[in-house]
Amino acid sequence: MLNRQRLETVIANMKVCGLKQIIVSDDNAMYYLLGRKIEPMERCSALLIKDSGEIHAFMNKLFCFQPMEGITLHEYRDGQDVYAMIADELDPGTVGFDKEWPCRHALPVLQKRGDVTPVLGSDPVDMARARKDSAELELLRAAGRVNDKTIAFAIEHISPERPEIELSHMIDDFFVENGGEQVGQYQIVCYGANAAEPHHYSDETRLRPGDAVLIDQFCPINGYWCDMTRTVFYQTVSEHHRHVYEIVKAAQQAGIDFVKPGVKMSEIDGAVRQVIVDAGYGDAFITRTGHGIGTMVHEPPDVSSNCDLIAQPGMVFSIEPGIYLPGDVGVRIEDLVLVTETGCEVLTRYPKDLQIVR
Amino acid sequence: MLNRQRLETVIANMKVCGLKQIIVSDDNAMYYLLGRKIEPMERCSALLIKDSGEIHAFMNKLFCFQPMEGITLHEYRDGQDVYAMIADELDPGTVGFDKEWPCRHALPVLQKRGDVTPVLGSDPVDMARARKDSAELELLRAAGRVNDKTIAFAIEHISPERPEIELSHMIDDFFVENGGEQVGQYQIVCYGANAAEPHHYSDETRLRPGDAVLIDQFCPINGYWCDMTRTVFYQTVSEHHRHVYEIVKAAQQAGIDFVKPGVKMSEIDGAVRQVIVDAGYGDAFITRTGHGIGTMVHEPPDVSSNCDLIAQPGMVFSIEPGIYLPGDVGVRIEDLVLVTETGCEVLTRYPKDLQIVR
Repeated sequence: MLNRQRLETVIANMKVCGLKQIIVSDDNAMYYLLGRKIEPMERCSALLIKDSGEIHAFMNKLFCFQPMEGITLHEYRDGQDVYAMIADELDPGTVGFDKEWPCRHALPVLQKRGDVTPVLGSDPVDMARARKDSAELELLRAAGRVNDKTIAFAIEHISPERPEIELSHMIDDFFVENGGEQVGQYQIVCYGANAAEPHHYSDETRLRPGDAVLIDQFCPINGYWCDMTRTVFYQTVSEHHRHVYEIVKAAQQAGIDFVKPGVKMSEIDGAVRQVIVDAGYGDAFITRTGHGIGTMVHEPPDVSSNCDLIAQPGMVFSIEPGIYLPGDVGVRIEDLVLVTETGCEVLTRYPKDLQIVR
Repeated sequence: MLNRQRLETVIANMKVCGLKQIIVSDDNAMYYLLGRKIEPMERCSALLIKDSGEIHAFMNKLFCFQPMEGITLHEYRDGQDVYAMIADELDPGTVGFDKEWPCRHALPVLQKRGDVTPVLGSDPVDMARARKDSAELELLRAAGRVNDKTIAFAIEHISPERPEIELSHMIDDFFVENGGEQVGQYQIVCYGANAAEPHHYSDETRLRPGDAVLIDQFCPINGYWCDMTRTVFYQTVSEHHRHVYEIVKAAQQAGIDFVKPGVKMSEIDGAVRQVIVDAGYGDAFITRTGHGIGTMVHEPPDVSSNCDLIAQPGMVFSIEPGIYLPGDVGVRIEDLVLVTETGCEVLTRYPKDLQIVR
């Protein structure tokens, strides 16, 4: 069913962004508005939203999309030209295209309408999605509690007997036993120098004394994601690694302390980054500070130097600085924060003091 | 490492397609050329290939992309303008954009280069990927053998005790035990009228006598996918459902018999569709006939009425007609075929005679 309240927010945001018409194609954006998951794969599914409130849905017959009040449904079959259908409904001038819309769909529409100028048009929906409503916040808090249990389980099960991939699977299984969806082989477990690669795939690597153990674990629970990273050390820790750890911990805390309504995402990134730069490791912090999260593991706002979005109550994002030293070590600490009226609430609470596991 | 032979085929195909420069961004296309998986998520990773053989790679520093001989590497960090880097290397005129490239990346590049005209530009890589080499064929044959074992296992475990979702998980687990990767909750198991929805999500539905049981199972094994559908009936079958089944079976066989080098994909679709139209069920065959498969579960060629690609030895695709009667029943039968010099080899062999399970 069309969520009228969310739609109204999107249309209000369109006016703020100066967009009279937008195309929404992303599955998660559509789910947010319609409460219905479509997995179109390579086929085209799209909503055209006009600031008048006029809405068109373009759906392949095999999506079995049920008509919804307030939406003009255009159904097509494989072999029919859905792009002509979309082009027919566009008004001349600027149109906002979903940032996720692939060229396979966007270019054929553009080729039919030389009088249309495409711009990135996801902001109206992203701005709405970025401020979670109370139902969404309950789900995110609950997911955070499961993640706290899961990281405790994971750290207890660090063992020289277990290659990265085995611990990764155990984390995934534990999530599923606690209400999560299976995300497969993607739970990030890194031993030693593997932790220097932020998106390392867990493999057959085994632990050696002195290794960092970086665990970045995430899972959707009732449709909303949790995400958390902890780094611990196995048996012993060198003075250098301890020093690196403390810098990351201080940077992450600086970010949490900085978050409140009115600050820019770029300023949060700056506050975190400054700690690492001042310590002389600026070149080793090769990522942004964080990302929004909700029905997707990565969604707006982007907590980075090039995002000037302003923190508002209801936004949820990660604060996850890291120092990555190729061939040596990687340390990352990540929590999710919810912007409140006065500051922020941290959704994951597993301790962050340096921990050496036996 | 850059696969020189595949690159040469791509460049030869660029000349056939009249493209002097293309951008390749799809993970699987990049893996095909570079033998390296990148999961950029929302970040930009792209190759620019020119018909002169000049190649540029645009990679975020955190992908840890290793330099490769023959490729000019442009690294960027979060916050740096990778789109300006790409725009700087484009020649004026037509540029082929990867069909998977999302607007978030494509539009910022276009905005910097008014002298560039984007067209869909995946054909040169897709044409190369569509004809599997011998190493790829061995992997696809092996995956098909695992799928034959898996469907036998699944059909043996149909039971009134088991909701769809449980059988779906059992199939997934069986694949993993036999060398497959976990694909999560997506194995399609449909009971009764649920089978009328081609992309039904398995749920808590339980079996009733007379139900169709449609199982569409797929899994990547050593990087190459298998995919197969069988429909059986539980305890009994009505005359009407038997009739529908026999039509689908005949249509699927007509497709297999029709495949040989030189025929168009649209003609294969036509040969299959004609059987169903002649039987009076044309409106209920709401999908295309099939899809290519390889490192992706769906990849070119598209076996549909609007694809005029010509079958060539080494192509592998599915033949999967269905009849979908909402509220009543759905029947689909799917095998993968490999185009040979004289016809085709069917990669999955589980029997297709109507089967009633107890």
